[in-house]
Amino acid sequence: MTYCVGLRLNRGLVFMSDTRTNAGVDNISTYRKMFTWADDDSVVTLMTAGNLATTQAVVSLLDERLKVPGERSPSVLGLPSMFQVARHVGDTLREVIQISSGAGQRADSTFNANIILGGQVRGSEPRLFLIYPEGNFIEAGDDTPFLQIGETKYGRPILVRAFDPDMSFSAAVKLLLVSFDSTIKANLSVGLPLDLTTYERDSLQPGERLRIRGDDSYFQQISLGWGDALKSAFDSLPDFVL
Amino acid sequence: MTYCVGLRLNRGLVFMSDTRTNAGVDNISTYRKMFTWADDDSVVTLMTAGNLATTQAVVSLLDERLKVPGERSPSVLGLPSMFQVARHVGDTLREVIQISSGAGQRADSTFNANIILGGQVRGSEPRLFLIYPEGNFIEAGDDTPFLQIGETKYGRPILVRAFDPDMSFSAAVKLLLVSFDSTIKANLSVGLPLDLTTYERDSLQPGERLRIRGDDSYFQQISLGWGDALKSAFDSLPDFVL
Repeated sequence: MTYCVGLRLNRGLVFMSDTRTNAGVDNISTYRKMFTWADDDSVVTLMTAGNLATTQAVVSLLDERLKVPGERSPSVLGLPSMFQVARHVGDTLREVIQISSGAGQRADSTFNANIILGGQVRGSEPRLFLIYPEGNFIEAGDDTPFLQIGETKYGRPILVRAFDPDMSFSAAVKLLLVSFDSTIKANLSVGLPLDLTTYERDSLQPGERLRIRGDDSYFQQISLGWGDALKSAFDSLPDFVL
Repeated sequence: MTYCVGLRLNRGLVFMSDTRTNAGVDNISTYRKMFTWADDDSVVTLMTAGNLATTQAVVSLLDERLKVPGERSPSVLGLPSMFQVARHVGDTLREVIQISSGAGQRADSTFNANIILGGQVRGSEPRLFLIYPEGNFIEAGDDTPFLQIGETKYGRPILVRAFDPDMSFSAAVKLLLVSFDSTIKANLSVGLPLDLTTYERDSLQPGERLRIRGDDSYFQQISLGWGDALKSAFDSLPDFVL
């Protein structure tokens, strides 16, 4: 599995992904699942969950189309809107899956992957999408301002309760670390280190890009502190009268 | 889906189950999933998740074998140990699934169910088991003192963080309500009302047996209070320095 979350805040976008990949429990590796492209007119970040061969092929194809002049159009940069970027990434994802599935394999779900895509193109708002293996996608909105892929359940309750679109990037990173820590504690298929990228609305340049390791002192402070804070919160509620 | 949790505390056992059953999202019903049997020498509670026809058949068979004199042996009461009770319930579950699967159906997983079983037989300790569709089972121990079936992920982080084997029944009910509330808020297939049963170690008689509805004032206090308590806990941790 994998765990990735994209937050759509009033001041911009925040992305966090884990780095564990596994084929069974005895074949685990560390891979980056977060990628950013930028030029003068657009900043695009994507995070992947699912079949690693599929997601690496998608990212390589997006990359190559930027670098080889003849193949530049369409590419992940230079499109007129984030909707067009999402369509381009969705088309690429669907094509990669179709090629693998066409080789006589029985269950094409094996090749599936999901993508969270966010960014901004000059002249329009920052936008955040979740792209399905079929190439279609949904967009985060005011009612559903964050998107998750991979092992989404353990870390969802704290997002539902504590997310606030007005929060600072610093508070958003804290929220994401709590959500990721709850997931990592419960599920072996999600693992450290974590990748973090922020994008500040209308800046049109990539924001912070950090890797948070297990020995990071802030991560440890949150991981340990959250257990205590949760116990205090729990103790502050009245017991049931039996 | 369904959500059921059994806790193994030093002072006894606590069971909670939801009551929602569904076949798709447009066919939802309310059914009891928690059942208790008792005589002078044993108290047995079980909770079910999975195919409703399977779980109802298992409970009816266990019930009938108690009531029809000729079929009394083996039955869920009168066995010399909780291990024997678990084996009896496991055998019954496996048989019911085999009968349904034998009717030429393709996917026998459709008929599957899981059971949490707990109780005490005079002369031995209270014990708590999780029974699989194959009829085999695992037992809760000191390292893993609670068992969940059904939609287990959303409500797991708070159990992992706040469970304490020394806790009172009153605190345990609070813990379970927080875990169930987080699940209900995130997943349509788990729903109110909730059933609660406690069993006090060495009492050898059924403990409290309550149904907690959505308008229950304590449940509302926990459901609303937990959001605020969680936000305070979250605010008490330092923000990330970007």
